[in-house]
Amino acid sequence: MKLIIDTDPGQDDAIAILLALGSPEIELLGITTVAGNVPLALTSRNARMICELAGRPDIPVFAGADHPLVHTLVTAEHVHGKTGLDGPDLPEPTMPLQDQHAVDFIIETLRAEPEHSITLAPIGPLTNIALALRKAPDIAPRIKEIVLMGGAYFEVGNITPAAEFNIYVDPEAAHIVFTSGVPLVVLPLDVTHKALVTPERNAAFRALGTKVGQAVAQMTEFYERYDKDKYGSAGAPLHDPCTIAWMLDPALFSGRHINVEIECVSPLTRGMTVADWWGVTDRAPNTLFIRDIDADGFFALLTDRLARL
Amino acid sequence: MKLIIDTDPGQDDAIAILLALGSPEIELLGITTVAGNVPLALTSRNARMICELAGRPDIPVFAGADHPLVHTLVTAEHVHGKTGLDGPDLPEPTMPLQDQHAVDFIIETLRAEPEHSITLAPIGPLTNIALALRKAPDIAPRIKEIVLMGGAYFEVGNITPAAEFNIYVDPEAAHIVFTSGVPLVVLPLDVTHKALVTPERNAAFRALGTKVGQAVAQMTEFYERYDKDKYGSAGAPLHDPCTIAWMLDPALFSGRHINVEIECVSPLTRGMTVADWWGVTDRAPNTLFIRDIDADGFFALLTDRLARL
Amino acid sequence: MKLIIDTDPGQDDAIAILLALGSPEIELLGITTVAGNVPLALTSRNARMICELAGRPDIPVFAGADHPLVHTLVTAEHVHGKTGLDGPDLPEPTMPLQDQHAVDFIIETLRAEPEHSITLAPIGPLTNIALALRKAPDIAPRIKEIVLMGGAYFEVGNITPAAEFNIYVDPEAAHIVFTSGVPLVVLPLDVTHKALVTPERNAAFRALGTKVGQAVAQMTEFYERYDKDKYGSAGAPLHDPCTIAWMLDPALFSGRHINVEIECVSPLTRGMTVADWWGVTDRAPNTLFIRDIDADGFFALLTDRLARL
Amino acid sequence: MKLIIDTDPGQDDAIAILLALGSPEIELLGITTVAGNVPLALTSRNARMICELAGRPDIPVFAGADHPLVHTLVTAEHVHGKTGLDGPDLPEPTMPLQDQHAVDFIIETLRAEPEHSITLAPIGPLTNIALALRKAPDIAPRIKEIVLMGGAYFEVGNITPAAEFNIYVDPEAAHIVFTSGVPLVVLPLDVTHKALVTPERNAAFRALGTKVGQAVAQMTEFYERYDKDKYGSAGAPLHDPCTIAWMLDPALFSGRHINVEIECVSPLTRGMTVADWWGVTDRAPNTLFIRDIDADGFFALLTDRLARL
Repeated sequence: MKLIIDTDPGQDDAIAILLALGSPEIELLGITTVAGNVPLALTSRNARMICELAGRPDIPVFAGADHPLVHTLVTAEHVHGKTGLDGPDLPEPTMPLQDQHAVDFIIETLRAEPEHSITLAPIGPLTNIALALRKAPDIAPRIKEIVLMGGAYFEVGNITPAAEFNIYVDPEAAHIVFTSGVPLVVLPLDVTHKALVTPERNAAFRALGTKVGQAVAQMTEFYERYDKDKYGSAGAPLHDPCTIAWMLDPALFSGRHINVEIECVSPLTRGMTVADWWGVTDRAPNTLFIRDIDADGFFALLTDRLARL
Repeated sequence: MKLIIDTDPGQDDAIAILLALGSPEIELLGITTVAGNVPLALTSRNARMICELAGRPDIPVFAGADHPLVHTLVTAEHVHGKTGLDGPDLPEPTMPLQDQHAVDFIIETLRAEPEHSITLAPIGPLTNIALALRKAPDIAPRIKEIVLMGGAYFEVGNITPAAEFNIYVDPEAAHIVFTSGVPLVVLPLDVTHKALVTPERNAAFRALGTKVGQAVAQMTEFYERYDKDKYGSAGAPLHDPCTIAWMLDPALFSGRHINVEIECVSPLTRGMTVADWWGVTDRAPNTLFIRDIDADGFFALLTDRLARL
Repeated sequence: MKLIIDTDPGQDDAIAILLALGSPEIELLGITTVAGNVPLALTSRNARMICELAGRPDIPVFAGADHPLVHTLVTAEHVHGKTGLDGPDLPEPTMPLQDQHAVDFIIETLRAEPEHSITLAPIGPLTNIALALRKAPDIAPRIKEIVLMGGAYFEVGNITPAAEFNIYVDPEAAHIVFTSGVPLVVLPLDVTHKALVTPERNAAFRALGTKVGQAVAQMTEFYERYDKDKYGSAGAPLHDPCTIAWMLDPALFSGRHINVEIECVSPLTRGMTVADWWGVTDRAPNTLFIRDIDADGFFALLTDRLARL
Repeated sequence: MKLIIDTDPGQDDAIAILLALGSPEIELLGITTVAGNVPLALTSRNARMICELAGRPDIPVFAGADHPLVHTLVTAEHVHGKTGLDGPDLPEPTMPLQDQHAVDFIIETLRAEPEHSITLAPIGPLTNIALALRKAPDIAPRIKEIVLMGGAYFEVGNITPAAEFNIYVDPEAAHIVFTSGVPLVVLPLDVTHKALVTPERNAAFRALGTKVGQAVAQMTEFYERYDKDKYGSAGAPLHDPCTIAWMLDPALFSGRHINVEIECVSPLTRGMTVADWWGVTDRAPNTLFIRDIDADGFFALLTDRLARL
């Protein structure tokens, strides 16, 4: 499975990258970065730090948009810390950032590889994907599928009462992606809030006895405080790794093929993923919207793959 | 407890009225009707039919708004049937509709009775309450509290993916109520979808051996088909009676004091109750938003009170 | 011609009332007041002061809404002064305010008088008219026509770049009026900015040698400073009297039967009268939208009628 | 003056290109095309036809966006004819379209040339300019100025009652441009509706006795029918050439430095340029908004420059 991860690390983004790098089924063609959890300079740094942590400085990393399509950037240092990757003490990266723009890397790779061979896994705001789709509309039918973390329905929102962070940061970009006709798999808060790093699961990471295992344990320890305080959760939710896990083993998940529209108009509900879970509209399905997860199976898979790094 | 019920019956509205009439703690000063589940002429007829079913033709019934404040009326015959009260075979009412307008009855009653002595229980669209508040702003500080059925947060919507029917029909009226400063208790779908008429509960109604018990059983049998088909529910949700039950025994319920704003702008999310359940905004609480119910306790209370009619 | 003036005086409102009282063709059944240029207590006071100035303390004055239908009140003391009627030194009124609510006076009068015999001239925000139409939908087909001052198209806006004050204060009320099916004549800024009190026209008021003439001269002197500073106008625009003048002599005006929609959604354009002057949409005409005036004829008429008081 | 024209020809776009090519003060670095009046394939064809008509097949032409940033494409064949360039009988172009994407040409040229040396003249929807600004935010401070045709204030709209075509097609792109901090000169309908091709002016084009003069005469003859029918105009308005004329001789024009915001929210007013001409808000000026033109001087300049081709 050929994959491009588009990301704004973020601790859970980092774990998603590690999961992909630890999985032999996946060929990671490159990582593209975007402004989101923290500004672009930091997400571009963090992505490279994680590649080096995994011993994979050969993975090309491309910087993309430093600003959402239409509106102003909102960041989430209150969750992820000042660097976006607070927790472990990792060295500054030495591998270079690529010269090419992330958007052009996405376009050229999709044009160069066979049709339907490449999956995109956007786990931050969708700005880069939207820019690529608008700059090069010919790529849409070449994408195998887009497996993204974003949105919420029954869990509704985290950054506002109506919106999840990734979609809220760039709803117009999300609108472009959700109306693109590309097959979509969406991992919303509804499912990712069920993938919680309990003390036992954290201990399993640490018990790997590797640098990767230790860093993952430290990262989840850092950012679990936010969800514990806010939601009374049992631990940090592993939002972004769910996308990679779905690619590796979709049987761990269940959901519905439904219509999802992105709210771009109202200040109160901006960024909401209006998901027609109950089929009360006649809007055509455009999304496989995941709601449930075998959390134990997910953590078994994740720990197993991290062990390979 | 002095009470005015504002309503658009609707089978569950009817049961709410019956619950109030069967409860000696409550003095029902009058019923005001509004367009909602079905047009005004039918809701005004249905309210009187229910009074007569309960042997209370002395309850004054006042017709109010036949149209939402700003936008066009949407009705729900697909749930409640053509009359709004399909199911039992009840006689046409013979008691008269009052001459006075519902809005003026609400205003004059609030002015005539002592301050903070009257509760309003709106269980349809909030048009009448909003008109009264705008026509006579002096009544707001005189209302004890408004205990309403409407909205949804985790259950999100029923008439659209983002909105519950009562609020969706007249969001501008809801905005007026939610910004009025009057103490609000809100019974949203989140809680009312937990008050389901299972076959056992329905049998308990029927076992009362009264006309009222039989009619309630027939009403819930009629409209449960909608929720069973749409949501796979175990039975009809008793939305509106939750308001009266909360007045009678708040200990059956639990919720949070939070901020709720009404979405009036976007066609996609219009009528959403944007409930800050997790406290992610700094907006001041204006609502006791109920989320949980002791369903067995609720049905015990309801059946007991229906038995008195 | 039987007339009810709905108003928020305002110097130009005051002159509109005086024009009606000085015109034997018009039978002024009552004046209803609304919050707008200044709060309701002041507009209710000012309306009575003007009746007394005209020697007509018999005109019944009814207070209406103190707040727009949905959103917060915006006032215009920056134009009209702290009292709304700054300029002349008029005595406090001694005539009483009526007990009845303005909305009920409008409804009852329309029901009591023959169909199509009564014109409404709203020259402030449309809150009272909208409340009456929603409380008593049966009155809509009984109204002869609504001749209102409000909106703008080529002159666009005064309170914001997109909106005229009267419509901006209560766009939802305006939406109700513009979709009511009642025949509408709209006198927008496009025409009222052509009805300017030049020094010569002001001198003509003063030359009447009456208390009314002097007060009118002083009122226009007071509020012309705003338009002179803002627009470089030659004098104060007599917005509201255009409505009464149109009733008296429509030949002084010209316009088009077009569709006008009220913008209620966007903060940037809220309250705009979206007037399809050029027929670029297929929306059905609902308004006679006036654009031009014989300004000399208008001032001749006005001065002549003021002379009779 | 180094210039890039971004365009969707369109007869008046074509004349703007010809005016630039006929003006020795201007070095036209390239033409970028966008979907607008007609789809991208036609605007890319038309731009090359015009270069060849002017004897300048050396001008590089780059195709850009085939779709507005967020919403669906709206075109204007009802004005410009099926090809976008109906009227003259011009041969199909033989010069090639460049391989590079318009957005990359704009970015690379701005990076390659000295700061503040390049003017952009967008005379279609602003999609390409917005994509360039978002993909490469470093270019914004390098642009000398953006001189664009679009919007309207007193003339309000042409494609809807509130919006001019170029802005309406891509309001989000316009929002990006108007909030970019780049110096803006805006030639709205307010001024371009004063640049009318009267029969005398058309005769002057034809009297040039050149292929260019004849084609310009035929183009304006074709599309004047629309404005004559719709607005009762005296002739075709030369919207787009006003941008080039302003660069050549700003003394022909007058306007104000004001704030302009782009309406992106409401379906009714979408694409409106909310221009604070009267300074009623406290929003900072971001635009030189042109309102008046010396039309005779403009046509003299235009005819003179066309004569050189």
